Amino acid sequence: MNLIILQRHEVIDHTARLTDNRAKHIIRVLHCVVGDRIKVGVLHDRIGFGTITALQPKYPFMVEMTVTHDSPPPPKVPLDIVLALPRPIMLRRILSQVTALGVGKVHIVNAARVEKSFWQAGLVDEDAYMAYVISGLEQAIDTIPPKIFFHRKFKPFVEDYLPGIADHYHYLVYAHPSSARGVHLCIGPAQGKVLVAVGPEGGWLDYELDKFEEQGFCGFAMGARILKVDTAVVNIHGMIMAELEHCR
Amino acid sequence: MNLIILQRHEVIDHTARLTDNRAKHIIRVLHCVVGDRIKVGVLHDRIGFGTITALQPKYPFMVEMTVTHDSPPPPKVPLDIVLALPRPIMLRRILSQVTALGVGKVHIVNAARVEKSFWQAGLVDEDAYMAYVISGLEQAIDTIPPKIFFHRKFKPFVEDYLPGIADHYHYLVYAHPSSARGVHLCIGPAQGKVLVAVGPEGGWLDYELDKFEEQGFCGFAMGARILKVDTAVVNIHGMIMAELEHCR
Repeated sequence: MNLIILQRHEVIDHTARLTDNRAKHIIRVLHCVVGDRIKVGVLHDRIGFGTITALQPKYPFMVEMTVTHDSPPPPKVPLDIVLALPRPIMLRRILSQVTALGVGKVHIVNAARVEKSFWQAGLVDEDAYMAYVISGLEQAIDTIPPKIFFHRKFKPFVEDYLPGIADHYHYLVYAHPSSARGVHLCIGPAQGKVLVAVGPEGGWLDYELDKFEEQGFCGFAMGARILKVDTAVVNIHGMIMAELEHCR
Repeated sequence: MNLIILQRHEVIDHTARLTDNRAKHIIRVLHCVVGDRIKVGVLHDRIGFGTITALQPKYPFMVEMTVTHDSPPPPKVPLDIVLALPRPIMLRRILSQVTALGVGKVHIVNAARVEKSFWQAGLVDEDAYMAYVISGLEQAIDTIPPKIFFHRKFKPFVEDYLPGIADHYHYLVYAHPSSARGVHLCIGPAQGKVLVAVGPEGGWLDYELDKFEEQGFCGFAMGARILKVDTAVVNIHGMIMAELEHCR
């Protein structure tokens, strides 16, 4: 935790009182004592400091602090993601990492190679992943969770929903092992926002890629090696960020 | 597993007999029957196919196959890594991912912010991580593990060892949140091999960065967000690969 995240309702008259894992972390990992100042942020709000006014250093842990939060969170990166729904454990890891990486929006969609059972109730709910999103925010010192959208049907997403958001983006791209195009042929020379589509284990079907291409998506190569989806997402983020840097 | 990996000693007269998790995987996940052909590779050797000649579909699982392996493994990427020793669970994840990403050499070094306990016997041994390396090879369809080196002392590594390998590389770089330089100012326009140094949680000390700079390392920015080391390594790999693509 590089940042202690508070919920808005936890801050009353500039004071917060913690009795959960955050209190334990402040005491056992940060080794704080009364008077210490630690970095705190309010979820969906600003970042600042908490000055510890009281604490209970043994179980049950308790920390009380006065909170000032007046710094804006860091900006999001100009990259949003369309992601074929992965298995839940993988989605958790990905959401934590893309949150830390500053991605603003994640559209989770169906695809032919997505296992139907992944769409079960309880798994496709923003709240089910909030703990992982918050761990990404704590890691990267941010307070604004990415917006997560679930789209249960591929065709309506691509044909009806995508055209409605496409004009927010300068570049629509997807990564594909068999593509011959380098990423710099899809992105650049102008600066602008990128939407990247990342397929399921086993990849998008040709039919699905055709649908993306019809919407103006440009496919770029990312080497012949088959990667796990979490590795692929983080790696592609790096590729696109390096590419956008050339456009500055 | 996109590839079943065999040890050299397991292949006798073009025949292999498996009774462990690989046999279970072939039967329970790949649903193979006698006569099926599956992708196999021999560790440190070539890639090919196994044709199943016999199997025991219930516990204790057993698969027998005749093996032909005549395709070369994919080339390594032109990127090696110097990595400050992370905690063991993190190192496992990183080695699995950089293996899948095709990194050829990983130099694991000490740094001021590395916890001393991480250097305990048993933790800094290539064999302790072989299972994770192999899972990376299985993922990316490769048979050549990266070479892993452990350097217990920072100063001898940088001052004595690094100069001996530095001329294998065209670019020596490190990523640093506070750097103002874009990655394209460190890498390009010529094609060539890259060695990148990735720091510990909390980053390299200024002293350590000075030492890298003395050896000719160029520091590039990767945004102000603090990332976990595994996220950082995979992200930096993507940035550098995108950059090298410009040099082709």
